[in-house]
Amino acid sequence: MYGLIGRMLAKPGEREALIGHILGSSAAMPGCLSYVVARDPANPDAIWVTEVWDREESHAASLHLPAVQAAIAKARPLIAGFDNHTVTEPVGGHGLAPG
Amino acid sequence: MYGLIGRMLAKPGEREALIGHILGSSAAMPGCLSYVVARDPANPDAIWVTEVWDREESHAASLHLPAVQAAIAKARPLIAGFDNHTVTEPVGGHGLAPG
Repeated sequence: MYGLIGRMLAKPGEREALIGHILGSSAAMPGCLSYVVARDPANPDAIWVTEVWDREESHAASLHLPAVQAAIAKARPLIAGFDNHTVTEPVGGHGLAPG
Repeated sequence: MYGLIGRMLAKPGEREALIGHILGSSAAMPGCLSYVVARDPANPDAIWVTEVWDREESHAASLHLPAVQAAIAKARPLIAGFDNHTVTEPVGGHGLAPG
């Protein structure tokens, strides 16, 4: 499995709109076993996204899906930056959806 | 929802054994919507654990479950420390199991 843990910063006041765009694109991504979007309670602009994929190639391919491309186009103007990006190797657990 | 993102450091050579103890205790925890254990590919001792709970009280209660208490007792001697601990407010996504 291939995992990502990242923190994204929205432009001031745009966090909820940005979360909406991210959630809207995450429903049907082949190979995606988990995709969780969370507010950072310590920073009003920050969003954590934690992802588990069956393999790295599925994540790369997802970025070319039309729904994801459309969401990226809407989200990009609302993003101020990214300040955490960690690749992981998930080994198991609970709540991993069928790929 | 209540989320946690944390990194744990195993004592040298003990990462796989520690992962085994953590995974063994994560199967049946009421209110647990997601619990993913991952190796950190950049550090041979590090383990990422990302969690989603229906609410904070469910996480607190899980620490008193007999299976979790037993796993903590086995895991503790293998843990060198914790160097990341972030509380999040998950809002949605994919792969969240029924609580």
